[in-house]
Amino acid sequence: MSLQPIFDRYLPPLEQALRDATRTARPELEGHYGMMHYHLGWVDETFAPEAGNSGKRLRPLLCLLVAEAAGSPMERAMPAAVALELLHNFSLVHDDIEDNSATRRGRPTVWKVWGIPQAINVGDGLFALTQLALGRLSDQGVPPARTLEAIRAFNAACVALTEGQFLDMRFEARVDVTLKEYLRMIQGKTAALIGAACRLGALIAGAPPEAVAHYARFGEHLGMAFQIQDDWLGVWGEEAVTGKPVGDDIRERKKNYPVVYALDRLASAGDRRLVALYQRASLDETTTQTILGVLAEVDADARTLEAAGAYLEQAMAALAATGIENQAQTWLAGLARALASRRA
Amino acid sequence: MSLQPIFDRYLPPLEQALRDATRTARPELEGHYGMMHYHLGWVDETFAPEAGNSGKRLRPLLCLLVAEAAGSPMERAMPAAVALELLHNFSLVHDDIEDNSATRRGRPTVWKVWGIPQAINVGDGLFALTQLALGRLSDQGVPPARTLEAIRAFNAACVALTEGQFLDMRFEARVDVTLKEYLRMIQGKTAALIGAACRLGALIAGAPPEAVAHYARFGEHLGMAFQIQDDWLGVWGEEAVTGKPVGDDIRERKKNYPVVYALDRLASAGDRRLVALYQRASLDETTTQTILGVLAEVDADARTLEAAGAYLEQAMAALAATGIENQAQTWLAGLARALASRRA
Repeated sequence: MSLQPIFDRYLPPLEQALRDATRTARPELEGHYGMMHYHLGWVDETFAPEAGNSGKRLRPLLCLLVAEAAGSPMERAMPAAVALELLHNFSLVHDDIEDNSATRRGRPTVWKVWGIPQAINVGDGLFALTQLALGRLSDQGVPPARTLEAIRAFNAACVALTEGQFLDMRFEARVDVTLKEYLRMIQGKTAALIGAACRLGALIAGAPPEAVAHYARFGEHLGMAFQIQDDWLGVWGEEAVTGKPVGDDIRERKKNYPVVYALDRLASAGDRRLVALYQRASLDETTTQTILGVLAEVDADARTLEAAGAYLEQAMAALAATGIENQAQTWLAGLARALASRRA
Repeated sequence: MSLQPIFDRYLPPLEQALRDATRTARPELEGHYGMMHYHLGWVDETFAPEAGNSGKRLRPLLCLLVAEAAGSPMERAMPAAVALELLHNFSLVHDDIEDNSATRRGRPTVWKVWGIPQAINVGDGLFALTQLALGRLSDQGVPPARTLEAIRAFNAACVALTEGQFLDMRFEARVDVTLKEYLRMIQGKTAALIGAACRLGALIAGAPPEAVAHYARFGEHLGMAFQIQDDWLGVWGEEAVTGKPVGDDIRERKKNYPVVYALDRLASAGDRRLVALYQRASLDETTTQTILGVLAEVDADARTLEAAGAYLEQAMAALAATGIENQAQTWLAGLARALASRRA
């Protein structure tokens, strides 16, 4: 299925709404909002317009598609779509500092260009704007009590996101992370917000509680599949696709699915080779290659793709359980399959 | 007026509500919430209980006092009081990184103990919790539409806070900041949230729009007075009171009220001495003393206290304009006078 009709229909109004939500009338604040625009892919470092890589806009697309599938006009869900995308970008701006990442989407990260203090504050500004955006749901005719329910679901995901991020950072220093711990971590770091995107779309459409639950589960499982796939790309993905050299996430000691799978598998066989490799002070090129060799021995590549595939099938089952059939629903299914199987 | 009766009445339930809002049932997340508890003054670096300095709890006290003055039970405003205090602490955790501050309230800052990446995320976690707390207003019987109005006011203040912080950081590199620019900066950085604290208290009590506006103006002017007073303390306050050596904010190139006043005043006389001093690469002890001497020449000390006093009088006038007379209102007036005139 081509995703182009989805992008053609949803991205132009979404980009417009994102621009409206990050505008200022005060000239002295143009630098603050300009840094957000840079991160969002609209301007260069001098704030001159540029058609940069804006990322996938996955979360708002899911929210808008679910809203339409469940019977709402797209516009009604737009404040939530904006909030979801701004929240995702807030987390990226802060992640880039936390992970010491110098580039994102082929360009220097915000902290690399403007320094850590301003980058922290730009992320905070994006976070604050998510909340103002969400409050506009009631201007779109969503009843106040339902708007509050949507706000609560969104903010529960925000809390889960920071909890997942805490665990992710803690795991970097550990060599005994279990698959169960890893799955709880990505549940917070990734799946909670993608689940919230779908939950909000259904809530805003006024879907019955069971349908809301099915869509939320669809999003959560899709989020798990997406993150595991992303972990795979971080190890074996080609630089042209990921923007990062092969093996990059290994060098950065990320406890991603393949590494945790291999640690778990080897630990149960009493094999401490991988633990010993990770205990070295620095992971040089030779060590990284040795680690990749150990991952190959335990088939971590195939096992990772299998795990992503299993979550995708659970997501598709939850989507089917809604019993809804229409164009937006077909697009949702196509988008989910495309996302969870991207390799190149 | 002794403030002790205020503390006795409001602080115990507030502290309990703050603890309830930052609790986790998941053992693996205790480190995340433990860092928040450390910052809030309840535990030491090993997460063992400690009676630390928790700060003044100014914003939640104002919110609770206004709510009671305007006729609401204290409990109804408690979710907003919690949100206000958590938001203030979120901003402190991030400010300490942005300002490279190693100590706060006599203890190492969060980033100093656990590193910048975790500290950024702890701040983000506090921010996310503010929003969950606010959503609980409707559980306290505040009608959904009014809850949404309170959320909107709170989040407008959050956006203003990040805008003010942007300007504050930008000003450090400038020597031509005007008093007008400075006042707009502290309006965002400090007064917006203190204004929101009072606005929320009145909104939650269901006060009529004019009363809400009077209380909000009271808070905003009090916030201006408070920040200018704080600027004074940052230059001339004794170390025992401020926790920082005399002249500390001068060394850090803060464009605070006395410095901006002096720059403004000297600029209109064509005197570039202060500009030249600030253009030096580093502000050593001698330079700092020279700057303090120039501030004395233009009476920056007295002018700063006068400015704070003028804002305080505007705040008191707005408070009186509500026409309300009761115990909570009397306490509000006493708290405001005490805050805006603290010198020791």
